[in-house]
Amino acid sequence: MAPGEPIECLAAIAWEAKKPLDVTKVIVAPPGPGEVRIKIIATALCHTDAYTLDGLDPEGLFPCILGHEAAGVVESVGEGVTSVKPGDHVIPCYQAYCGDCKFCKHPESNLCISVRAFTGKGVMKADGKPRFTTLDGKPIFHFMGTSTFSEYTVVHEQSVALVDKTAPLDKVCLLGCGVATGWGAVFNTAKVQPGTSVAVFGLGAVGLAVIEAAARAGASRIIAVDINADKFPAAKEWGATECINPKDHDKPIQAVINELTEWGCDYTFECIGNVAVMRAALECAHRGWGQSVVVGVAAAGQEISTRPFQLVTGRQWKGTAFGGYKSRVQVPQLVDEYLAGGTLLDKYITHRLPFTQINEAFDLLHSGKTLRTVLTFE
Amino acid sequence: MAPGEPIECLAAIAWEAKKPLDVTKVIVAPPGPGEVRIKIIATALCHTDAYTLDGLDPEGLFPCILGHEAAGVVESVGEGVTSVKPGDHVIPCYQAYCGDCKFCKHPESNLCISVRAFTGKGVMKADGKPRFTTLDGKPIFHFMGTSTFSEYTVVHEQSVALVDKTAPLDKVCLLGCGVATGWGAVFNTAKVQPGTSVAVFGLGAVGLAVIEAAARAGASRIIAVDINADKFPAAKEWGATECINPKDHDKPIQAVINELTEWGCDYTFECIGNVAVMRAALECAHRGWGQSVVVGVAAAGQEISTRPFQLVTGRQWKGTAFGGYKSRVQVPQLVDEYLAGGTLLDKYITHRLPFTQINEAFDLLHSGKTLRTVLTFE
Repeated sequence: MAPGEPIECLAAIAWEAKKPLDVTKVIVAPPGPGEVRIKIIATALCHTDAYTLDGLDPEGLFPCILGHEAAGVVESVGEGVTSVKPGDHVIPCYQAYCGDCKFCKHPESNLCISVRAFTGKGVMKADGKPRFTTLDGKPIFHFMGTSTFSEYTVVHEQSVALVDKTAPLDKVCLLGCGVATGWGAVFNTAKVQPGTSVAVFGLGAVGLAVIEAAARAGASRIIAVDINADKFPAAKEWGATECINPKDHDKPIQAVINELTEWGCDYTFECIGNVAVMRAALECAHRGWGQSVVVGVAAAGQEISTRPFQLVTGRQWKGTAFGGYKSRVQVPQLVDEYLAGGTLLDKYITHRLPFTQINEAFDLLHSGKTLRTVLTFE
Repeated sequence: MAPGEPIECLAAIAWEAKKPLDVTKVIVAPPGPGEVRIKIIATALCHTDAYTLDGLDPEGLFPCILGHEAAGVVESVGEGVTSVKPGDHVIPCYQAYCGDCKFCKHPESNLCISVRAFTGKGVMKADGKPRFTTLDGKPIFHFMGTSTFSEYTVVHEQSVALVDKTAPLDKVCLLGCGVATGWGAVFNTAKVQPGTSVAVFGLGAVGLAVIEAAARAGASRIIAVDINADKFPAAKEWGATECINPKDHDKPIQAVINELTEWGCDYTFECIGNVAVMRAALECAHRGWGQSVVVGVAAAGQEISTRPFQLVTGRQWKGTAFGGYKSRVQVPQLVDEYLAGGTLLDKYITHRLPFTQINEAFDLLHSGKTLRTVLTFE
């Protein structure tokens, strides 16, 4: 096709909550000013996609094109785009980075606000409209500013991380969300120190990424916690020094860990999205200085609680979004780290399917038997 | 009296909850091994005393001798005590410091555990017994390891801060709890940086101490919050740049402050002990990096709660006990700072009474019209 023309391509439309995705053709408009059209090479599935598809996000918009953990090649760029050009290899980032807002300028935050009001509404900043339509012209909302369940997508320039061309896109796509989130929770949010103790609740891809990073940071004790003991072999392979199943104990898991460690762990991470587990994680952070990091995303409306005494006696309660990474700056660095070796990135990919089998991929996700399924278009 | 003999002296016995204190004679045993007997010169009242006397602490032990914000002179020392000697000027510290336990050795904690199991039970470590008895031999429990509502008290050596002899004891007594707690919350727990914004909830002595310290730390905006507007003139005098009364607004106070500041304050401090206010304080901490510090002590059994999204979007929830100061090391430094000038310590003393009028002092405390009442024995 000529540059600047609409593209007809394959995509998976979520028409409404709790229905399978509709793998069909859509029209992807050319990128507007400050926008980038990307040919997606590989996309993985993440629990946030499933969460929205299950109708649990009260702000979820339908019909939409889900997907936010992917990698691709720039097809064309809109007016004024300078940071990438056609042919560049990129990772779309649901957490944007403009470099210019109050949050980008702050050393401790990655919560760029440049396009947030628009990505939250499923549209583009330039004209407040989506770039996706059905073949008969019905508009389809974007999702998280990425919409990677489409052979082509349009994103804001602020959401595009330019990565090394030699990196395999069907692997580094995982750096668009879950694995990066786990690593960053350790390196950026908690800043885990050598010789310390860590507890990780929930042993999906994010929990394993926390374990991997904690081991790389030099933690000497890494306690992996899950109610599914099938996940323990992987946890040990990733670096856990011991595994605990709360179902094997009569008392609350925080009491079990506090007994085991005497005063709790220096760092604890909740990687599930369960508010009761978030409390447990806080309450087995070390008295005096323990930090507990909320990594999982809780269902809408749910609340965390604890006795304030837990904080007064020195525990800190924190959270992380995309692991605190400033996306456009740091995702390329993560890709470089991967290329240099020493990360476990490849091991998170337990399944591969053609994009057309995306609904099977969701079934796999729900089964708990997969870490990441990578879908490819060709 | 000869050294090593019991002393008969004036004290205020709390026989049971919700009853006035009984100002009467008690017998104070000589200090056992590792103990120090102190002649109290001045003692102030703090809300924790009132909280226990009101029967709100389910672990409160009666009969006991309350009081934990005081200064005095060492009368005698028990076997093995090396850090102080008779005649030394000291501040008894409810938070001990042994220098040797895991918590004392950690740079970020002041929660020494050396005598905690015993002070929590109202007894001394050497023999598990109290040093106070009535004239007819009935034992009376200690309180917080200090029991300063007595002309003489016995404390563990770990609880004695040796201070400069030139410091006026009837003023630096305030450094035994509230004022030090407020200062430390700012300097140690939050580590407030120059040019930042701060919100302080509750304008009693602790809240004012937070304001004082925030101003000294160079905060450029200090928002003082209280439902009693009578407290605003003092807040401004102490350094607040603006005062807000939640009663003047229809929306929750966190929404008011978030509007006023656009994204919240860099640091917020709860200095009341109200769990709803703790939530409000967290929820107007700055998106991305705001820290909220719980300084107030909540009633037993109460819990704090919030949506985890508040943490995931970068807010941190912390707490402080005795402002994070390592008591025996840092209280003497605070006294030196006071002597060097530049602190507002004198201004917190709004009332002075003889010790025998201690029940009137409690009435003043409950009236909300006092910052600190200092009681003296002579």
